[in-house]
Amino acid sequence: MDNPGYRTGSFDGLHHPSDDDDDEMVDIAGATLDFSTTDDVPPLSSGGYNEYGTSGVGGRAAGVNGNGPTKLVDPLEDPVPGVGTYEDFNTIDWVREKSKDRDRHREITSKSRQSTVALLHSVSDAFSGWLLMLLVGLMSGALAGGIDISAHWLTDMKEGVCLNGFWFNHEHCCWTSNETTFQERDRCPQWKSWAELITGATEGPFAYIVNYLMYIVWALLFSFLAVTLVRAFAPYACGSGIPEIKTILSGFIIRGYLGKWTLIIKTITLVLAVSSGLSLGKEGPLVHVACCCANILCHLFTKYRKNEAKRREVLSAAAAVGVSVAFGAPIGGVLFSLEEVSYYFPLKTLWRSFFAALVAAFTLRSINPFGNSRLVLFYVEFHAPWHLLELAPFILLGIFGGLWGALFIRANIAWCRRRKSTRLGHYPIIEVLVVAGFTALLSYPNSYTRMSGAELISELFNDCSLLDSSQLCGYQQPSNISETGVGNTLADRPAGPGLYTALWQLALALVFKMMITVVTFGMKVPSGLFIPSMAVGAIAGRLLGVGMEQLAYYNHDWIIFKGWCSPGADCITPGLYAMVGAAACLGGVTRMTVSLVVIMFELTGGLEYIVPLMAATMTSKWVADAFGREGIYEAHIRLNGYPFLEPKEEFEHNSLAVDVMRPRRADPALAVLTQEGMTVGEVESLVESTHYSGFPVVVSQESQRLVGFVLRRDLLISIDNARQRQEGVVSASQVVFTEHAPSQAPDAPPPLRLRGILDLSPFTVTDHTPMDITVDIFRKLGLRQCLVTHNGRLLGIITKKDILKHMAQIANRDPDSILFN
Amino acid sequence: MDNPGYRTGSFDGLHHPSDDDDDEMVDIAGATLDFSTTDDVPPLSSGGYNEYGTSGVGGRAAGVNGNGPTKLVDPLEDPVPGVGTYEDFNTIDWVREKSKDRDRHREITSKSRQSTVALLHSVSDAFSGWLLMLLVGLMSGALAGGIDISAHWLTDMKEGVCLNGFWFNHEHCCWTSNETTFQERDRCPQWKSWAELITGATEGPFAYIVNYLMYIVWALLFSFLAVTLVRAFAPYACGSGIPEIKTILSGFIIRGYLGKWTLIIKTITLVLAVSSGLSLGKEGPLVHVACCCANILCHLFTKYRKNEAKRREVLSAAAAVGVSVAFGAPIGGVLFSLEEVSYYFPLKTLWRSFFAALVAAFTLRSINPFGNSRLVLFYVEFHAPWHLLELAPFILLGIFGGLWGALFIRANIAWCRRRKSTRLGHYPIIEVLVVAGFTALLSYPNSYTRMSGAELISELFNDCSLLDSSQLCGYQQPSNISETGVGNTLADRPAGPGLYTALWQLALALVFKMMITVVTFGMKVPSGLFIPSMAVGAIAGRLLGVGMEQLAYYNHDWIIFKGWCSPGADCITPGLYAMVGAAACLGGVTRMTVSLVVIMFELTGGLEYIVPLMAATMTSKWVADAFGREGIYEAHIRLNGYPFLEPKEEFEHNSLAVDVMRPRRADPALAVLTQEGMTVGEVESLVESTHYSGFPVVVSQESQRLVGFVLRRDLLISIDNARQRQEGVVSASQVVFTEHAPSQAPDAPPPLRLRGILDLSPFTVTDHTPMDITVDIFRKLGLRQCLVTHNGRLLGIITKKDILKHMAQIANRDPDSILFN
Repeated sequence: MDNPGYRTGSFDGLHHPSDDDDDEMVDIAGATLDFSTTDDVPPLSSGGYNEYGTSGVGGRAAGVNGNGPTKLVDPLEDPVPGVGTYEDFNTIDWVREKSKDRDRHREITSKSRQSTVALLHSVSDAFSGWLLMLLVGLMSGALAGGIDISAHWLTDMKEGVCLNGFWFNHEHCCWTSNETTFQERDRCPQWKSWAELITGATEGPFAYIVNYLMYIVWALLFSFLAVTLVRAFAPYACGSGIPEIKTILSGFIIRGYLGKWTLIIKTITLVLAVSSGLSLGKEGPLVHVACCCANILCHLFTKYRKNEAKRREVLSAAAAVGVSVAFGAPIGGVLFSLEEVSYYFPLKTLWRSFFAALVAAFTLRSINPFGNSRLVLFYVEFHAPWHLLELAPFILLGIFGGLWGALFIRANIAWCRRRKSTRLGHYPIIEVLVVAGFTALLSYPNSYTRMSGAELISELFNDCSLLDSSQLCGYQQPSNISETGVGNTLADRPAGPGLYTALWQLALALVFKMMITVVTFGMKVPSGLFIPSMAVGAIAGRLLGVGMEQLAYYNHDWIIFKGWCSPGADCITPGLYAMVGAAACLGGVTRMTVSLVVIMFELTGGLEYIVPLMAATMTSKWVADAFGREGIYEAHIRLNGYPFLEPKEEFEHNSLAVDVMRPRRADPALAVLTQEGMTVGEVESLVESTHYSGFPVVVSQESQRLVGFVLRRDLLISIDNARQRQEGVVSASQVVFTEHAPSQAPDAPPPLRLRGILDLSPFTVTDHTPMDITVDIFRKLGLRQCLVTHNGRLLGIITKKDILKHMAQIANRDPDSILFN
Repeated sequence: MDNPGYRTGSFDGLHHPSDDDDDEMVDIAGATLDFSTTDDVPPLSSGGYNEYGTSGVGGRAAGVNGNGPTKLVDPLEDPVPGVGTYEDFNTIDWVREKSKDRDRHREITSKSRQSTVALLHSVSDAFSGWLLMLLVGLMSGALAGGIDISAHWLTDMKEGVCLNGFWFNHEHCCWTSNETTFQERDRCPQWKSWAELITGATEGPFAYIVNYLMYIVWALLFSFLAVTLVRAFAPYACGSGIPEIKTILSGFIIRGYLGKWTLIIKTITLVLAVSSGLSLGKEGPLVHVACCCANILCHLFTKYRKNEAKRREVLSAAAAVGVSVAFGAPIGGVLFSLEEVSYYFPLKTLWRSFFAALVAAFTLRSINPFGNSRLVLFYVEFHAPWHLLELAPFILLGIFGGLWGALFIRANIAWCRRRKSTRLGHYPIIEVLVVAGFTALLSYPNSYTRMSGAELISELFNDCSLLDSSQLCGYQQPSNISETGVGNTLADRPAGPGLYTALWQLALALVFKMMITVVTFGMKVPSGLFIPSMAVGAIAGRLLGVGMEQLAYYNHDWIIFKGWCSPGADCITPGLYAMVGAAACLGGVTRMTVSLVVIMFELTGGLEYIVPLMAATMTSKWVADAFGREGIYEAHIRLNGYPFLEPKEEFEHNSLAVDVMRPRRADPALAVLTQEGMTVGEVESLVESTHYSGFPVVVSQESQRLVGFVLRRDLLISIDNARQRQEGVVSASQVVFTEHAPSQAPDAPPPLRLRGILDLSPFTVTDHTPMDITVDIFRKLGLRQCLVTHNGRLLGIITKKDILKHMAQIANRDPDSILFN
């Protein structure tokens, strides 16, 4: 409307889409989070398509390329506000988006030869991707640092407060104190527990009870704040966000999911949720936070603001950034994005992801949130070798991890389904408070559940040095010093009473964590799964490791220990078992393999441990896959009915395109338009009588020879526009999709020419095409729909939703569980 | 022939293809290496297509899926020997190959429910991929270890011989000696230089000359042996092999290129070529060796022997294995395969590549060829930090690397083109001998060129410790011990005379290496580029590093050194500069980025150095790209005219499918078959009058409505077969592609029904489809050809070769440089 000029070039349209409609995925939508309530969205209705891609294609043929047919351009090609964007909960068309970007790039390149300004523009355009990556890395790194520091502070707040200033955490408080000794570095007069502040007593049952109560009160307060903020300001901020990000990256639009409100609220509530002591981690949500940063920063660059496909490249890189800051593993992050999250991952994105992941890691390192110049709390450096026979317990851990992963997914999905279907889902705040209170109540007495998940993992990964005072290192001290071996490496020692206590507590913590995580993941607070899964695995691994160690200590003479585990040798490293267990459980839950091993490798820095990690994660994946092919993220995608075409799974059924396409045998024939001969009134009534998102255009009803494909949205907008602005267009006007207007009776109203909105290159397959090939085409090209022909005649249409429904049917699931287009 | 049964099932055909024809890429072909001589292969002739895929599709519809149309099966569907394989120098059809594998998998899965044996078969089939990976890893690791050890021994042989046994290398000889001191660990009485053996003198000009002559004689002998063996037994064993492997992985068939003879000869001649002192490395050829291993091992498993697409997945993994053993970098290897070599790299391949790369690395480590329990000679462990200001020299190194890379590619391609076009190419043996003699003559006097490339790099990467006696560490000893800093880290010291000599020698070595590598790469011996490129970069880096060090030492007070480089500090690490320079030059030549940084990261093991490496490789890539977008491998692919559709480059031109398809405007109409009405004689004469590899089948000449696509090879074989075996088939018989035979005159000969060989799901695009989308479809789906329609009428055909020719035309190159289909 605001661009009323008569424009025939095709590229100009790219630069003036209505900006107000373009901030999708950023504005907070009023949508409720529970997608089951949006069930009444009519299928295939209101398919917003991209007019610019289409006009770019048609216009190119006319304007730039002299060889192509001419006169394709239509006066209606002006950009109309609202066209060129997608509607919420719709799928983008990758082919058109990428084609649009190539047009844009071509235009900039051809212009750059004309003037210096245009050349500079071209150069700045080429480097804008790198600049954007730099900004994403810096912003995500800074946010991750802030989250780490705040969460650390709030977690300590549950136990006490620093008198020097309430904003110091426990460690920081005692650092600044002069009265701290190395032995008792956790105690200093400035740090007061709540009991000390309130009752004055530091010891005794009364002080314990006061501390206990304060712990619960703080936990409830933090979790209440978290869930209320999420409910009030950003319903999309809950959960880990990875299932939704996978869906968005595959080409789905969820407006507001990566917007500024989600970012702000997710950052704040993540800190609160982690500090409340709930069994959840910050690692998954950090991926969501990084993606929000990337999406918001995309708005600084036209190239990324205007193109859904380009923006998804940036989001893929942002997912890598998220894992990079979560684990201090830039390479692992890139592989995570490649293996787990991304859908379209060209090589260019690989380089950029890596760059962004590095920038983020270095930003976080310069913030140094843990004061150990490492990016994560649980960085370890092992040096002890492992023996080939130890692969047996490692594989055992893999089996445990796989079993737990499969069990967890089933239990969690069952619980989430119950939440959706019963009244439980109506009281998210009460649910969170109950779970948080229960968690705090049971956590406090056991020191291994009282500490945060990251601290627990850090403690379990650590190898015991001689001076280590923690319970886990409560071995019997060696009688003479010669037994202790050389340097840092300690000989295996018999367990002392401290260790036995620790083992009992760990066993209880294991059971507790396994149960509570099932009900925690999926609540309406930000919640990651990495840390709880790793904690479960690390506990199991440590228990097995200590068991092995004691077995080897008391049975040096067994044949299996002969030769590599003689008395006085440091042959078993329980910390390594904890790490292997953590990898196995995380692998069982998420089904990551390479990226997981690389993340763990970057955590330890030793190539030697890749084989144990690999053995455990592979076993874990195989065992878990035997119970169900889906990882937790895919399971949640299916639970929520997102239209996600899993790129990893092969389509195994042997149906043909004709079995999947619509119309089915019993249905009425496909609604088509003819390229000439239909009046505006006929077209309008056809469009109104159906709810399809697009209509094939054929030469004639008799021949059914395909000319092109036109989108409902484009058609309606163009007709409305023409009726208002073009003289003489009435219901009796002929609609013409051909190049040249047909000869008409002299008294007929002028025809309405709509070739400009016609997609002249729709994808087609024949009716005999096997569905495995068709699915491959959909996946690889990122199609929304594909037309089916038989001997050159149009027969039907297959949409992404048809494929998903067909797959659901094959798997004996409800095909109507696919909710969106 | 040996399966004359009347078979209606479609899967049986998969199990009985003729084994004798199936060992493609394994048997050594009699083909000459110089592909320019095969120019006379007629374009598009004799396109061997895969009958099984087609019959699988058709048969599936009939046999398994009850919904599909029936009666598609034809008596001619018996496997005929020779059908189902591809001809040499032809492109495979990825879609059909993958579909074939899915059919196979489906059949095994459905059978596995019936009996225990079938279930076991299904399980063993599922794990055969992993077993194959294990074998590839073991074999490649063992071969790499053998090559390392032999090359080390032969290299030392040029200087002298061990009296304890000629099979000991210098180091090993003196290890076993008791008379070796730590200071002079290189000298022991058992090791005799040639001068000592022949003249008895160890010193003096005469001994020097004898050693010099012997060095040249051995170099000539080794290089003569290498080139003769290559010429006589395996012409494909020459070069690095990476350009050809890239082409093969993209779906091209080069029979014998990965065969057993190539493996044997490449392994032997690689050792000889490396030992001869030529400026080449073993890293690239190791990728070729690993791929040969994988291809040969594929023959143990039906799944991989019979399917070209599955085999290429294994070869992708093998490329990762090659780099893994070459650099001891499993993760870097996988990323190298992903970034540089592979075409189709599904996630499953990612996991398997990683597994195979690890197995190979551990096999090599257990062989321990260098005695340092590292996989490479030039493994280093730095601990010195770097300062942000040092990024400036690092970027300078990047610029140098980029410039050298661009220059090297131009010079090398120009030289190789000259070799092809002039008489030079007719005397490969003399060429190798001249270059080897010249190299030896110039190398011997300079100790940095005399040592092998890997040794040189190792020396340049190493940081100087206080006791280091090498010339490069010829610093002036500090006057008082307090200046030397603490522990291992040494303060910067002023350069002494030893270092100055070393710098001069290095500068000469740099110039020499830069020149000689240009003529060496592309000769008819196995030759890798990694080591020479890295050597050039490492020399440049070390020179710059020492320069910076001295600058900082003498100018502590300059503002740029203030604060981080005070006197007595160890602020500049020349070894790090060498490493950054090596990465920059390698990046400039190959245009690798992420994989290169990760390989270097795995060589050093420190995350801190990623940023310098990243800065240098990125700069290097950008600078080199400014001079030409192609890396050395792409340049060689183009030089040889392989049909390789570069997946990294975007198609930037704005043509439409109609501009690229054949027939062109002036050409006669497309040769098509009709689905009925043509006689056997007419079909035969049409086939014989053209040289197309396939023919579209249409409903009728008038309507031009597409029914399917039939391959020339299938058509000819089927007609021949029918004439021999089916009664009454004469030239006047009607050829019928329809489901039901048409009504005929009662006295007419029986019709020949060929629907069984008809591909009922050919890919089509419309004439208005932009070429960028078409190219995307070809790349992503791996098509060989695609039909072009207009309004449902068949208009023309686009083959991969048409696209490559069109791209060559756009780039103003000779479109006939694309030699193969």
